[in-house]
Amino acid sequence: MMPADLDVAVLAGGVGAARFLRGLTMVVPPEGVAAIVNTGDDTELHGLAISPDLDTITYTLAGAIDPDRGWGLAGETWNAMEALARFALVKPAASAAGSTWFNLGDRDLATHLYRTARLAEGASLTEVTAEITGAWGIDCALLPMTDGRFRTMLTLAENGDVVPFQEYFVRLRHGVAISDVSFDSRFGGRRSELAQQPREALESAATIVIAPSNPLVSIGPIRALDGVDDLLVRRRDRVIAISPIVGGAALKGPADRMLVELGFEASVTGVAQIYAEVASVLVIDTVDAHLAPAVEALGMRCVVTPTVMSTPELSRSLAVTCLATIG
Amino acid sequence: MMPADLDVAVLAGGVGAARFLRGLTMVVPPEGVAAIVNTGDDTELHGLAISPDLDTITYTLAGAIDPDRGWGLAGETWNAMEALARFALVKPAASAAGSTWFNLGDRDLATHLYRTARLAEGASLTEVTAEITGAWGIDCALLPMTDGRFRTMLTLAENGDVVPFQEYFVRLRHGVAISDVSFDSRFGGRRSELAQQPREALESAATIVIAPSNPLVSIGPIRALDGVDDLLVRRRDRVIAISPIVGGAALKGPADRMLVELGFEASVTGVAQIYAEVASVLVIDTVDAHLAPAVEALGMRCVVTPTVMSTPELSRSLAVTCLATIG
Repeated sequence: MMPADLDVAVLAGGVGAARFLRGLTMVVPPEGVAAIVNTGDDTELHGLAISPDLDTITYTLAGAIDPDRGWGLAGETWNAMEALARFALVKPAASAAGSTWFNLGDRDLATHLYRTARLAEGASLTEVTAEITGAWGIDCALLPMTDGRFRTMLTLAENGDVVPFQEYFVRLRHGVAISDVSFDSRFGGRRSELAQQPREALESAATIVIAPSNPLVSIGPIRALDGVDDLLVRRRDRVIAISPIVGGAALKGPADRMLVELGFEASVTGVAQIYAEVASVLVIDTVDAHLAPAVEALGMRCVVTPTVMSTPELSRSLAVTCLATIG
Repeated sequence: MMPADLDVAVLAGGVGAARFLRGLTMVVPPEGVAAIVNTGDDTELHGLAISPDLDTITYTLAGAIDPDRGWGLAGETWNAMEALARFALVKPAASAAGSTWFNLGDRDLATHLYRTARLAEGASLTEVTAEITGAWGIDCALLPMTDGRFRTMLTLAENGDVVPFQEYFVRLRHGVAISDVSFDSRFGGRRSELAQQPREALESAATIVIAPSNPLVSIGPIRALDGVDDLLVRRRDRVIAISPIVGGAALKGPADRMLVELGFEASVTGVAQIYAEVASVLVIDTVDAHLAPAVEALGMRCVVTPTVMSTPELSRSLAVTCLATIG
């Protein structure tokens, strides 16, 4: 159950969403904030259940994130991964065991060990996430978009191979072109659904913010769940999107190239095209002020403000601006 | 396939067996040695497949074991476990997740991550173990006694609860009395079997050594597999057992108390009673020399020699004595 006085629901990916939430929870009571978090990036490695976006947000809100990398814990050690490298020499060529391309810090491993054990006991990802965020002293709600299986898949342009998100993002260091994004959301013959708490949050929040996350592979998976776009369309006048594209480039990650590869402009207008149907406002950075008319031509109100959240104070200012935009 | 010129097969538990194997592989070519290793202690924790006896032997033979603890890696760090403790406060009371009673070092975790990933890919424990020992540069064969599920269970005297070995051994610090040892060896309706390579080793080895491991919960599980005792009886004149009881006490662990609790004497004669049917020789420590006649009265030849392997050189001497015993 969401609190009745829920102020803000945030559709969230990883780093950009985490930083926005950090600012937002400085200006509204954290208990009134619910983040609906992408789980399309989730993966299993070495038998462990890994939820990168949930963990990035958790560690950021806990003030424990590594500030330079933007993921993982500050002051982390890497002894397990270094020891794992020993096995790369002996594993069969076809085996993915002993992979160290997805770097798991020693302290970060504890989160995956706990999550894996609880899921094996039958807890839902929603329940486990509440426990993990509780352990970190986080007061806002982090809600996995679904408790079902959902995997974002990317088609590689070069050879048509369809690979899970982390293979593209981490293993291939998002250095290759893609030709498609798809979602593998069936498990046991059943389509994974928007979880109940995110649904209630989208229905009841005074304001809905689409965080400055990758529109295609961070926000896209949430929107791909049945009913999400319908809910957003119905509440469009309460929905604000923040552009993750600034000056034609992604602040982090491959969103700019991905947009182009999938036929969009790598610009705030490209973002506006993707969000115009479900959001009434697009927040863009001051460097893109000249594109405000183009955004408004697509039917969105355009708010121009600094959006690069390089400090907590800038995150806070951006949150204030967003909240002021929708009474 | 075992090499045709296999010299010694060793029935092996943890620390005592590991130290004996270290000495043995100094005096015979490691390629001629096969350890048949107890897997009754194996467990799953946090989704990871853990094989304590296999790892103790691996780390010992690799010269990487922590010399003080006798288990785990030297120079180990514990950052993952320390971080895991955070979740003990938030987990539901009935949950076993986030347990830190079974301490897993950061570098040791790599072994479990690799094993878990390979097993999930369909590799057998025999195959995975060969890969792991290969990665550590170990030339003798470490053979899990079975590739099937096999769990040593202990009945607690106080309340009749039946608990897996590690619950008793680690969680309860083997500090409570037991009333029974049993084996849960069925998986998917089928009884787990002695693996093929251990069977071949027992059939072909010139000498079979029962390492100075706990007779009830380290060697007992191996002997509980169908056909093992028959093989040992058939080759009894080639089978030497080394007493893990010295001066009426176990060098490590609860073997002495367990023997008494289950109706045996905590002495070399108690050990002789357990092994007389399957071994023709019992090697006992010099402090127990006065009990040699009692051992021989049970139908075993008794060899008296220093058996406390506090240095590699003493392990080596013990191995030399054992090999000299059976031409």
